[in-house]
Formats: sequence, structure tokens, C-alpha cells
Amino acid sequence: MTRTTPKILSGFMELLPWQQVAFNRIKDIIKDTYESFGYSPLDTPVLELSEVLLAKAGGETEKQIYRFNKGDTDISMRFDLTVPLARFVSMHQGELVFPFKRYQIGKVYRGERAQKGRYREFYQCDIDVIGNETLDISYDAETLAIIYKLFNRLGLSRFKIKLNNRRILKGFFASLALDDKITEVLRIIDKLDKIGLDNVKAELQKLGVAEEAIEKILLFVSQKGNSEEQLSFLHGLGIKDESFVSGVEELEKVLELTDFYGVPAENIAVSLSIARGLDYYTGTVYETELTDIPEAGSVCSGGRYEDLTGFYSDKKMPGVGISIGLTRLFSQLSAKGLVKPCPCVNAVVAVLPVSDSEKTAVLSFAEKLRGKGINCLTFTEDKKFKAKMNYANRIGVPFAAIIGENEAKTDSVVIKDMQSGEQKTLNLIESVEFLSAENAKILTAKPLLENIASQEE
Amino acid sequence: MTRTTPKILSGFMELLPWQQVAFNRIKDIIKDTYESFGYSPLDTPVLELSEVLLAKAGGETEKQIYRFNKGDTDISMRFDLTVPLARFVSMHQGELVFPFKRYQIGKVYRGERAQKGRYREFYQCDIDVIGNETLDISYDAETLAIIYKLFNRLGLSRFKIKLNNRRILKGFFASLALDDKITEVLRIIDKLDKIGLDNVKAELQKLGVAEEAIEKILLFVSQKGNSEEQLSFLHGLGIKDESFVSGVEELEKVLELTDFYGVPAENIAVSLSIARGLDYYTGTVYETELTDIPEAGSVCSGGRYEDLTGFYSDKKMPGVGISIGLTRLFSQLSAKGLVKPCPCVNAVVAVLPVSDSEKTAVLSFAEKLRGKGINCLTFTEDKKFKAKMNYANRIGVPFAAIIGENEAKTDSVVIKDMQSGEQKTLNLIESVEFLSAENAKILTAKPLLENIASQEE
Repeated sequence: MTRTTPKILSGFMELLPWQQVAFNRIKDIIKDTYESFGYSPLDTPVLELSEVLLAKAGGETEKQIYRFNKGDTDISMRFDLTVPLARFVSMHQGELVFPFKRYQIGKVYRGERAQKGRYREFYQCDIDVIGNETLDISYDAETLAIIYKLFNRLGLSRFKIKLNNRRILKGFFASLALDDKITEVLRIIDKLDKIGLDNVKAELQKLGVAEEAIEKILLFVSQKGNSEEQLSFLHGLGIKDESFVSGVEELEKVLELTDFYGVPAENIAVSLSIARGLDYYTGTVYETELTDIPEAGSVCSGGRYEDLTGFYSDKKMPGVGISIGLTRLFSQLSAKGLVKPCPCVNAVVAVLPVSDSEKTAVLSFAEKLRGKGINCLTFTEDKKFKAKMNYANRIGVPFAAIIGENEAKTDSVVIKDMQSGEQKTLNLIESVEFLSAENAKILTAKPLLENIASQEE
Repeated sequence: MTRTTPKILSGFMELLPWQQVAFNRIKDIIKDTYESFGYSPLDTPVLELSEVLLAKAGGETEKQIYRFNKGDTDISMRFDLTVPLARFVSMHQGELVFPFKRYQIGKVYRGERAQKGRYREFYQCDIDVIGNETLDISYDAETLAIIYKLFNRLGLSRFKIKLNNRRILKGFFASLALDDKITEVLRIIDKLDKIGLDNVKAELQKLGVAEEAIEKILLFVSQKGNSEEQLSFLHGLGIKDESFVSGVEELEKVLELTDFYGVPAENIAVSLSIARGLDYYTGTVYETELTDIPEAGSVCSGGRYEDLTGFYSDKKMPGVGISIGLTRLFSQLSAKGLVKPCPCVNAVVAVLPVSDSEKTAVLSFAEKLRGKGINCLTFTEDKKFKAKMNYANRIGVPFAAIIGENEAKTDSVVIKDMQSGEQKTLNLIESVEFLSAENAKILTAKPLLENIASQEE
């Protein structure tokens, strides 16, 4: 037979079992957090009609699309989950309940030039809440709370949710008579963390912004302090512009409400330089920085927008949402050693017969465990006992349950801790109870570690 | 602004929120069942190099592939999860632990001619266990047990797992001196349920099979009875062919072991006509028929094969596996009314303030619920109370928790049963306990119904 060399496309992530278990634990916590706030699941097709999907796209995005013809049909692979959401909401306005809260966790496709840390197929984990004509500001606070809950449940405490409001920026620049340059100025400011103050200054000069205005802008965007101090700075500017005033009000309201969601003040940072590149944000904007991986940039971003469905529908549909690029985040967390090691399976124990005579006792015991909601695997190949222990060891399960001639006779099990090597003989009831308790620990364990070295700083 | 009419490609399934919640409950139970037996998750890319993915393909399959070029690269979308598994196992032989048990639940793509009940994008839910050179027969019993557990956990009891062994068929046809026509004969027999005895007979005659052999074949494939009776029929044939004898032995072994997995005898039917179309099955084969939807055919099929990785690797890798086409199955179950109605969200309660003054009390209460693992949503738009109740009603959650001026003062909550309309005032602790218990009911509920009408037959 002619053999083909097995390989995958470059820029595509494919994980080995223990990595995939870790990845899925993170993905599941994101999903569970989204669901805990009552977001509906959505699962749109990966393929869309190009004319529909690309109604808005252009420039860089359009070049990256995987687009092809099948028969007479011009088809594109989705490159994000926002355009499919807009399309879905427009199609089903009459059937949805508003505010419409949806989450979608799925793969998206961008044929970018391959480079380290960039993937051509990657998971986005999105939530959006869409209003019919209007949407209360409290949803902006809820969205921030979800960011907090999510990283907290993953096991992190060392992160900042950076918060700003585009109305504040709009009003501030209007007060400097820079209305006509807002988009360019915002784009420059947005790069502050990446390129530094001096480069921002240079770019603003190149844009023709007056020196006095540049000084005010730089003071504004480099302003630091806790939320109270930032608000007091904003009030102190005495700007009367309507957009500015309403933006500050919204920001205050969001901060006030986050308290009731149990978000600690130290995880929020009002950051006046944050604008988000996308043109369509109009109010609250979020970025999330992990203290242990500042170089990752924002790992969860989003904000409030006025009009989700403009390309498909006459109705005004404002919303607020966030997105996590999970594939890249996982790769960054892994590289930093922040992902806890996992077994190859989501199971607490491998049940092993000493010899083939105990095979059926092993199957019955495993069946008992599953009946109690305990995931387990059995090894029933007719091999030497050493090979069976080696299997349990390589699979990486925390415990082995061993049944030999004596155990089968006395309805007992030897439980071996695979890490410490300790073992004890328990009767069936005791062993199920023990493994049940250990299983519960796994189910509630947090999949990420904090960077201990930097905590000792 | 020019508006584009929002629509999706034909042959693609996209569900509304309450349908998606139901779909996901089914998908989650399939996943949980696979994990409970210690299968590792696998998530291969949707896109593969055409030369790798299509190493084996040809004919009908190849015509259906979504295939395109991006730059110089010839790319195809996966059309099943078996070829990617073979490719993955071949690439990572040295890093995997054998027997390698993996599940994969993901979308696959086939650009078939559109027809009712056929989808061009659909979920496959697969498990396979792959041995290194050899694989014990006990895994064939485990696989059957997983089929049983899965449909049982979904809420069904009225189904038959049809079981056969290709070695038995091979040996039987060898005993009729039909060795050279086995593939054609099997293909004809496999259609028995679809086309009936007379048509099978006609096709066998056309193939040139002697009348006497046809009679024996028809007797063989139409044999009915419980497992014991079927085994006794097979023994009674007195066939000495080595393949036949070893096949019967395997079948007996599988049946014997399923007992220890707790599979009821009435859910298993030894069906000697089952061959499975695919050429690569060599031992045990399975099909699953839902009693309430016989016209759906087999909703979960698979079997034992000798050599998964032949196209990519020299090593012999036998395995046993099954696959469920979930998208089609869901559509069939829905059409028959066998899917329990679901709310738009995976949540038990909507928490509603009577007026804007109780908004923060609502947020705090919802936060308490989430702290106890209870999914909930809040409605915090400044609307009339009637609109809030209408929201809870349309979302479809079983309960509303209402906080008015009085409740906010006395730390209590009005819990309203949305179905019966009954309501009661509880203090915070009581209300959390009550909702926690109701939530637990939802988490353990089975998503499918049996067909009550046919149960009354």
C-alpha cells in the first residue's frame, strides 16, 4: 500500500490528550460561567454565504477569509462570531426574547500569514446581550462581572479589568476641538501600552495635533489611580460636553453596580487610554490584562455598541459583549507554565485486575463507580500486572483500584495513590466513598495556577 | 446604508435558543457518557491537507468534499472523524498510551445534494479504542455498553442494539463456497431491512448465487430470537470454518461480558443480517434502532476493524468504535416530538425587581444563587412589571424570583412557579434551598421522552 505522510496544516493547533483535557477544563469553565448568568447557547454554521458574511468586511479581514465556490455557491468560513450573531439576530428578531443574551464558543478561521502565537483556526468564546432599541447600562456591569468571575473561577486573582467609556473619549476630544480626528487619535492612543508615550506623542504630532492639546491628551491617557481617583480626575477637568458628561455618568454607574456583583475593586482599573481598535464601540470598553503575562496584551476585550445589525436590518439593536481568543490564550498560559498538569482522561481512577480471572470483578466495580457519577477506566488486556500499572501511570489518573484474587473473594479493592505510591485495602462501600470524594475535588479544581515566582516579589 | 438580506446556506442546521438548549443537553450527555468510560477528548482541525485527508477517499465521498486552494495549499474540510483519527494516531504513536481511547464530538462537512433530513454540516459523536497490534475483545463489550448507557441516560428504554460479527458472516459464506463474492453478498444483505427479503433474493440471483445457497442465506439472515436462541442456531449449523468458529466465540464473549456492564438482555438483538456497508469492519458490528423511530434506521453504528492506520503507517492498529450523527438524529427526534421542551437558557430562575429601586437587591440575590451553583438571569431594564413577567415567561424558565419594596426590606423573595402560577414568599435561605433543589432536578433530568402512544399499544 502506498503510505501518505500524516501531517496537519501549519497554523492549526492540535493537542495531545492531557493538553486537550486541560484545554477543555478551561473551555468548560468559560461556558459554565456564561450559562450561570443566563446566556443562551448559539451554534451558527462555520460556513456562510459570502455575500452575507462579508457585507461589512473589507481590507485586511477580507484578505484573510477562507473563501471558495462549491457548485454555483460562493462560500466563506466565518472569521469571527459577531457577524454571524448580527445575521442571526436580524433573521430571527420576531422569535427572540429581548434583551437577547447569547454565548457562542466555536472555531473561527483566518488565513493570516503564519507567525508564532497566531492561529488560522482558533476558538472564540463570546457573549453579547442585545437590546431591542435600548439596553440598560446595568448589562455593562454584568459583563464586567462575568469577566471577573471567569478568570477567578479559572484560578487567577492577579488580573486587571481595564475599563473606559468611548463617550468620555469622544467628549474629551471634542473639548479639544479634535472632533474630526477622533478615529485617528483613538487609534494612536490605543497603542499606548505597546509603543509608549514618546511614540504616541510623535504620531500625534505627525497627525497635526497642537502641542497644547498633545500635553492634555498625554496627561489624560497616562492618568493612574483607583476608580475613585480616576473619577475625581475626570470631574476635575470640568468638561461640559454632553458626551463627556454622560460617559462619566455611565462609568460611575457601572462601577457602582459591580459592587453588587461581588467584583473586588482591585481587579478593576479605570484606564482612560483604552479605546479598542474596532470602530463600532460607542460606550463602555473593556480589556483584561493578566499580571503574570503582560506581554499577552488583552486576553478578554469588548464593549458597548450602538448598532449590531445595521448591515442586515433597519432596527436599531444596541449591545454589549466580550470575546476571548481561547486558542492563543491557552498557548500563552501553557508556555508560562500556568496550566495545571492533567491526566489524559477526565477520570479519577483506573481499575485493574491482577490477572484475567478478576476481569469481571473489575467490570462490575467500574460499573458501580460510574453509577455514582465517578468517571473511570478499566484495563482488560491480558497483560502482565506491571504493564497494567504502567498504563495507569502513563494515563496520569491520580488513583489505581486494583482487584486481585483475594480482593475478588472478599469484595474489597486496593486503592493506590499513583503519586505517593501509598496503598490501602478498602471494602466496596469505603472505596466508592473515597473515590467519590476525590472525584469531587477534581470537579471543583481550578485549572490554572498563579505565577508563584512573581507572587513572591 | 445598503442592507444585505440575512440568510444561511441551505442544508445547514441553525437552532433557536430553546432548541439549542435541548440539543446541547443531548450532546452533553453523550460527552459525559463517553468520559465516564475514560475516553480522552480529541479536537482535530476542521481543515486538513487534501493529500492527507483524501489518501483513502474516492468515489462518492470525494465528490462531496468541500475542497479549495488558499495560496498554494490544497485544503479539504473533514467529512468524518475517522480519517483525522487515523492521521492523528499515526502522527503521535510514540506519545499515546495504548489502548488509546478517544472521543471526538465535532462538525463534519459533506456537500451532498440537498434533501430532507440530510445536512451538509453535521455533528458526529465518535468513540474509538485503538490497540497497538492487538486489542482485547472486552472492548467490544464496553462499546456496546456505552451505546446502552447513552440512550438510557438520554431517557430511552425502547431501543435495540443489533449485534453481529463479520467473522461469522465470512465463515458462513466460505462454507457456501461464496468467498469470492463476499463483499457483494454482504452489500446486498445489509439492505435487508430497507428493501425486504424478496428484493434481496432477486439481487442474489442476479449475482449468480445458486438457489440452494440463497435459501440457506435467507434462512440465516432472517433468523430471529433472543441471544441464546441465536447462538444455539449458529452452533446448530455445524460449520467448521475457522473464521466462523472464532466469530461465534467472540460474539459469545461479548454477550457474556455485557452482563457485567449492566446491559439488559432485552436491549440487545443478535442480528445475523447486519454487515455494515463499510469495507473495513472485520469483527463485531453494531447498529442501534429506536423502537419509536424505526424509519430513522440505525442511529448509532460501528464495529471492530483490523487496521485503522494502513494509509499512514506500517504498524497494525486494530480498533473498535461507534459513531452517532447527532444533527440528523436531533432533527428526527424533534420531528417525532420526543425531545422535551426546554427554556431558552440553562437556568432555573429569572430574578426580577418590581421597580428600579430593588435592582441592587436583585443583583445581590442573583449573586447568592450563582454562588450556590444555580444558574439564573436578572431582568434589569427599567420597564413595567408586566413586561418583566412577560420576559420570564417567554424565556421559559420554570421559576421567577420577585423582589419588591417589601421583600427588599425583609430580606425575602417571592418565588413564582411559571407553569402553575402559584407563588410563595420565602426568606433568603429558604429560597436558595428551594431553587437549589429545583436546579438539581433540571441537572439530572433526561432530555428525551418515550413515545407514550406507542407504549400503550
